[in-house]
Amino acid sequence: MHTYPSGSSMDATHIVNGFSKLSREKKLQWIARQAELSERTLSEIHSHLHRDPGHQEVYSDISENTVTNFFLPLGLAPNFLLNGTLLTLPMVTEESSVVAAASLAAKFWAMHGGFTGEVKDVLKVGQVHFTWNGTEESLISSFGKQREQLLRSLLPLTGRMEKRGGGVEGMEIRKTGNRPGNTYQLFVTLRTGDAMGANFINSVLEALAKQFRSVMQESAVDGTPEIIMSILSNYTPECLVRCRVEAATKVFGNMDPGLSGDEFAHKFVQAVDIARHDPYRAVTHNKGIFNGVDAVVMATGNDFRAVEACGHAYAARAGSYSSLSRAEIKGPRFTFTLEIPLAVGTVGGLTGTHPMAAASMEILGHPSSEQLMQIIAAAGLANNFSAVKSLITTGIQQGHMRMHLVNILRQLGATREETGLATRHFTSRTVSFAKVEEFLNSTRDQNS
Amino acid sequence: MHTYPSGSSMDATHIVNGFSKLSREKKLQWIARQAELSERTLSEIHSHLHRDPGHQEVYSDISENTVTNFFLPLGLAPNFLLNGTLLTLPMVTEESSVVAAASLAAKFWAMHGGFTGEVKDVLKVGQVHFTWNGTEESLISSFGKQREQLLRSLLPLTGRMEKRGGGVEGMEIRKTGNRPGNTYQLFVTLRTGDAMGANFINSVLEALAKQFRSVMQESAVDGTPEIIMSILSNYTPECLVRCRVEAATKVFGNMDPGLSGDEFAHKFVQAVDIARHDPYRAVTHNKGIFNGVDAVVMATGNDFRAVEACGHAYAARAGSYSSLSRAEIKGPRFTFTLEIPLAVGTVGGLTGTHPMAAASMEILGHPSSEQLMQIIAAAGLANNFSAVKSLITTGIQQGHMRMHLVNILRQLGATREETGLATRHFTSRTVSFAKVEEFLNSTRDQNS
Repeated sequence: MHTYPSGSSMDATHIVNGFSKLSREKKLQWIARQAELSERTLSEIHSHLHRDPGHQEVYSDISENTVTNFFLPLGLAPNFLLNGTLLTLPMVTEESSVVAAASLAAKFWAMHGGFTGEVKDVLKVGQVHFTWNGTEESLISSFGKQREQLLRSLLPLTGRMEKRGGGVEGMEIRKTGNRPGNTYQLFVTLRTGDAMGANFINSVLEALAKQFRSVMQESAVDGTPEIIMSILSNYTPECLVRCRVEAATKVFGNMDPGLSGDEFAHKFVQAVDIARHDPYRAVTHNKGIFNGVDAVVMATGNDFRAVEACGHAYAARAGSYSSLSRAEIKGPRFTFTLEIPLAVGTVGGLTGTHPMAAASMEILGHPSSEQLMQIIAAAGLANNFSAVKSLITTGIQQGHMRMHLVNILRQLGATREETGLATRHFTSRTVSFAKVEEFLNSTRDQNS
Repeated sequence: MHTYPSGSSMDATHIVNGFSKLSREKKLQWIARQAELSERTLSEIHSHLHRDPGHQEVYSDISENTVTNFFLPLGLAPNFLLNGTLLTLPMVTEESSVVAAASLAAKFWAMHGGFTGEVKDVLKVGQVHFTWNGTEESLISSFGKQREQLLRSLLPLTGRMEKRGGGVEGMEIRKTGNRPGNTYQLFVTLRTGDAMGANFINSVLEALAKQFRSVMQESAVDGTPEIIMSILSNYTPECLVRCRVEAATKVFGNMDPGLSGDEFAHKFVQAVDIARHDPYRAVTHNKGIFNGVDAVVMATGNDFRAVEACGHAYAARAGSYSSLSRAEIKGPRFTFTLEIPLAVGTVGGLTGTHPMAAASMEILGHPSSEQLMQIIAAAGLANNFSAVKSLITTGIQQGHMRMHLVNILRQLGATREETGLATRHFTSRTVSFAKVEEFLNSTRDQNS
């Protein structure tokens, strides 16, 4: 690492030029020198390449400057009964207990009616942002006259999507939110079939922007639009899915030795209600939903940043950040519902080209995008159910402790035998680094 | 796939019992039968195991029911000059152009003063939620009397963390947000050194909850607390980092042939300002920030769901979802700033046990958690800069088209020669499935 005085302009000789053009080997040689990488790390980096060079090329081509692969475990969560179909969910996550929690909730609900999913709508959104130096009236009236011609001009791009039931659905002029000044937008709604549709939407918008500028220049009375930018919006509140489970409260009779089924249900509703009213709790509550959501989003080659950004903005739509799920009891019935916007695809993008995303699609029986929305929502609701259940009964740590213990034992270089002893010892004891170290030391003293 | 009438209770004989206890091979045999997996998919699944069984055990143990690994490319983004130190960032992402965009912005800013990072604070948050059946006054006064004793009772758990400068910093009673009813919380602030601290915080909170219930029962005049749940909050607005770049507007003279440096800067500021005022734009703007943020979060073994949930809730804290970054021009100076809460760790969790996360830490020169916060923020700001730059000049599609084209060519089974021809043909043409298919067909006709 070179160190430079803060804020100073760098000596240009230290900047790497043409790094992206170097071969993978040269890139590695360079970083090994710069970051003084150990031989062991270099050999680890090599060992994570796919053994088949053709496969490795696929992975390397997904992004840029690829030097190796980052592995995440792909696990299976069986027993998801969704709208009467039994599914096993492929889940990719680096967090322990997520797959176990999903599986436990799935099995419980499979025995009590399963998950019911329902897609509300699948509208996508795009925006062409521009400034307008005339009156708002003339903008709206000129646009109104040109609207049909604009839509027609997009046909070469939208024709194929229209055959698949997609295309541009709506187009209107809007002012930029609450921004003072003369910025407006073409607010476009679209359908994209089974594709997530980012490339389609952005191509349509960029073509639309050019056409819009040109027809408005020809037709307008008192103004000209200057395009600022054209891009899809990841905020798709009308690409929405709802998923619920419901049962008589008596089914919860065995959840906790200290709680009747009815008491468990009431405590559960209370816990979810706290997440509706307290943003500090809501963020963690929703994070638990996304533990399940993202694991399936990632396994199927979809973009979790898009799904996260949209979902959390949706959670804040009423002015205060709130829970995405709701629980209620009416008479003897308990209902737990998740409502979440999910713009995901099952064709295009990585779904077909990433070998493990393709495997995930096969595991799921090649769902349509609307089916996948429901599957992902079920995963989110399942993880949310298990998390709240643990929180109001045994506490969240019991489920996390096994992994925490394994991590600490690894760090302390525990042998297989010591690991076995420690696992038994800490079954019902609080795990902390100090306590585990103490236990290992006392074991080692006894044996030395 | 078995299909059942919607909403009916399942035939219990179809539920898999003891799935988690099966060996990896048995799990695969089961899913192969259930989902009718092809031989090819099964062989793909096998080919993604790590060649060293010891390594594979590490990956399998990270989560549950692991059957293989999901690969994501790990790429390098060089030329990050941050507070005077030159760094190469390890980035893990499935989205094309993210690493390239980060690298381009990093190189540009390395020649113009680099990134300036600053950690505002590193406070973490935990909550013990409970009901209280007495008056609020008696709750607050009894708690005040027991506060010191409660803190002392936690010492066996917090002692080690206190030696590393961490521990419990504050503890107070709060009502549950805007919720009617008798729910309260112990709102706890903590410091966790270089650890993300989830296990530490949750262990402390669960112990605190037990102690709190017991001392309050002994001491209170008119009430008893009933614990609902104890858990960290992922909302940490005071675990906050700021990162900025700044330069004279004239440095942007070569960004676009149609724009002077001053015009580019003004258009850039306008574009960022639209994202401040329009939630539809803000969501996508911030999504672009998280493209960079998550790629480093993931590469270093941190939890991107926690970072996403916190960041987006922070973006909505003023009541309307808004941009996390701001751009401004004062006189001849352009400034671009990102402010983002980031609760990440550089010890504990996966950072040490995941071989590629450990490699990432070595590539970064083993930063402290506060240094890592600044590095991640720089990645977010870099990706945001490149995205806005593309949007206001060439458009976002130009950068995405290469990958889009490659995907379409793969789907259409293009040969290496056809791929070369198509790449040249589409250099300056809009890519769509129909257009690429048409091009391939015409090429094939000519050669047949």
